[in-house]
Amino acid sequence: MKVYERAVRFEEVDVAKILFFARYLNYAHEALERFFDGVEGGYAGLTMRRGVGFPAVRTAVEHEAPLRYGDVARIEISTAKLGNRSATLRYRFVRAHDGVVAANVTHVVVTCDLERMTSCDMPADVRRVFEEHLET
Amino acid sequence: MKVYERAVRFEEVDVAKILFFARYLNYAHEALERFFDGVEGGYAGLTMRRGVGFPAVRTAVEHEAPLRYGDVARIEISTAKLGNRSATLRYRFVRAHDGVVAANVTHVVVTCDLERMTSCDMPADVRRVFEEHLET
Amino acid sequence: MKVYERAVRFEEVDVAKILFFARYLNYAHEALERFFDGVEGGYAGLTMRRGVGFPAVRTAVEHEAPLRYGDVARIEISTAKLGNRSATLRYRFVRAHDGVVAANVTHVVVTCDLERMTSCDMPADVRRVFEEHLET
Amino acid sequence: MKVYERAVRFEEVDVAKILFFARYLNYAHEALERFFDGVEGGYAGLTMRRGVGFPAVRTAVEHEAPLRYGDVARIEISTAKLGNRSATLRYRFVRAHDGVVAANVTHVVVTCDLERMTSCDMPADVRRVFEEHLET
Repeated sequence: MKVYERAVRFEEVDVAKILFFARYLNYAHEALERFFDGVEGGYAGLTMRRGVGFPAVRTAVEHEAPLRYGDVARIEISTAKLGNRSATLRYRFVRAHDGVVAANVTHVVVTCDLERMTSCDMPADVRRVFEEHLET
Repeated sequence: MKVYERAVRFEEVDVAKILFFARYLNYAHEALERFFDGVEGGYAGLTMRRGVGFPAVRTAVEHEAPLRYGDVARIEISTAKLGNRSATLRYRFVRAHDGVVAANVTHVVVTCDLERMTSCDMPADVRRVFEEHLET
Repeated sequence: MKVYERAVRFEEVDVAKILFFARYLNYAHEALERFFDGVEGGYAGLTMRRGVGFPAVRTAVEHEAPLRYGDVARIEISTAKLGNRSATLRYRFVRAHDGVVAANVTHVVVTCDLERMTSCDMPADVRRVFEEHLET
Repeated sequence: MKVYERAVRFEEVDVAKILFFARYLNYAHEALERFFDGVEGGYAGLTMRRGVGFPAVRTAVEHEAPLRYGDVARIEISTAKLGNRSATLRYRFVRAHDGVVAANVTHVVVTCDLERMTSCDMPADVRRVFEEHLET
């Protein structure tokens, strides 16, 4: 499990003054970028120089409690399932100040050659990151 | 079924040059705003003046094919399930130029008093909109 | 002068319930995409296929009155100055329901070869669009 | 001068693969939120509980060099001018890896009672923050 903390920003809440529901996936992707910090060049190097990325196949968000402006989301990211070319990531969103779970996100991705936009084998260092954070 | 068409914009694609996966939910919400055009004051009047909104309980996105900059998404929105205070919306994303399905989104919402952030009964005109677009 | 109308959306207002100030430039760019509708392939074709774009050199926004959720911005776009490779665009944001000017935006751009990211001559059809909307 | 560092994210670059020009103002506002960390309750407390905010009067961005995905922007924020109710903020965007200036932003704000949306006196602790970072 890797942890990424992120404060909700001023312009990210909606008219109801809670974090706009679509942004949970933006936050999840930010956590994913941090997840791959250990890879050579990081996520930026992976996608820009090595041409490898992870288009989403399926996402699901279960909302439990709102996040408000000023809250900090503690996002715990782990590998729920690891296939040959695909993986299921899990993100638990916890409100830092009271420990309440705000949301659970699952995110199925497939390893892709971004030039051709076709699935490809997982590079060894990418697989290691997924394995390192595999749920037991 | 209600239809909302939306061109993918310049700044909405990611490094892979496809519509960033999180934005499907932004597009879905735009379609939802149009869905309620018939209600008095529209979605803006509903949320701002009448204090009624629809926080997300659960969302799921199934990606079928990418959308690129310049593509137009034709979003077909319908009511898949209608409860007392909750509803399940379905959005089918179709690429306008070739008819390929890009994604299917489901979105479970609960009617809410936005001041108190507690669930509430569905106003009659809101229910009518959900019923009008109920799948058969 | 070309006109682009755009409703302020639910997730675009900030805690103060007014359109977040940074988004005026997003709206301006949307208007710019429409500005070039007449070019072959539109703005998407221009940037994606022909590799020509308009990186910003300088922007300035003068705020006069707020835009709120539910308001429609009527954006009037014109060419204030036309150089060899550069142009100054002007966007007047008018609130559709009461005619009040919300903001004035100026946007200096330079024609660029997006592959090399160096300035380049303006294609003839691009220049025609700028000329057509030149302020008198 | 206060410093805020921020990595350019995957979904923030445009088709030209550089940070979309409108987002410089989003980054500036993030830096502004950090600028007020020392105030009681921070910027969130200020805007949400105390009802005080800083609507933009005028912004200007001078672009010098692009920021790309993977770059880190080092944003140096200072008070260029301090009035009775208004202030001019300056943000210098420096690319962290090579020290090149990417952009200079100026941002004129007025202290506002967010409930009434009218200008108001600057609270003493807010003024102290502006004064502390006043350019000499």
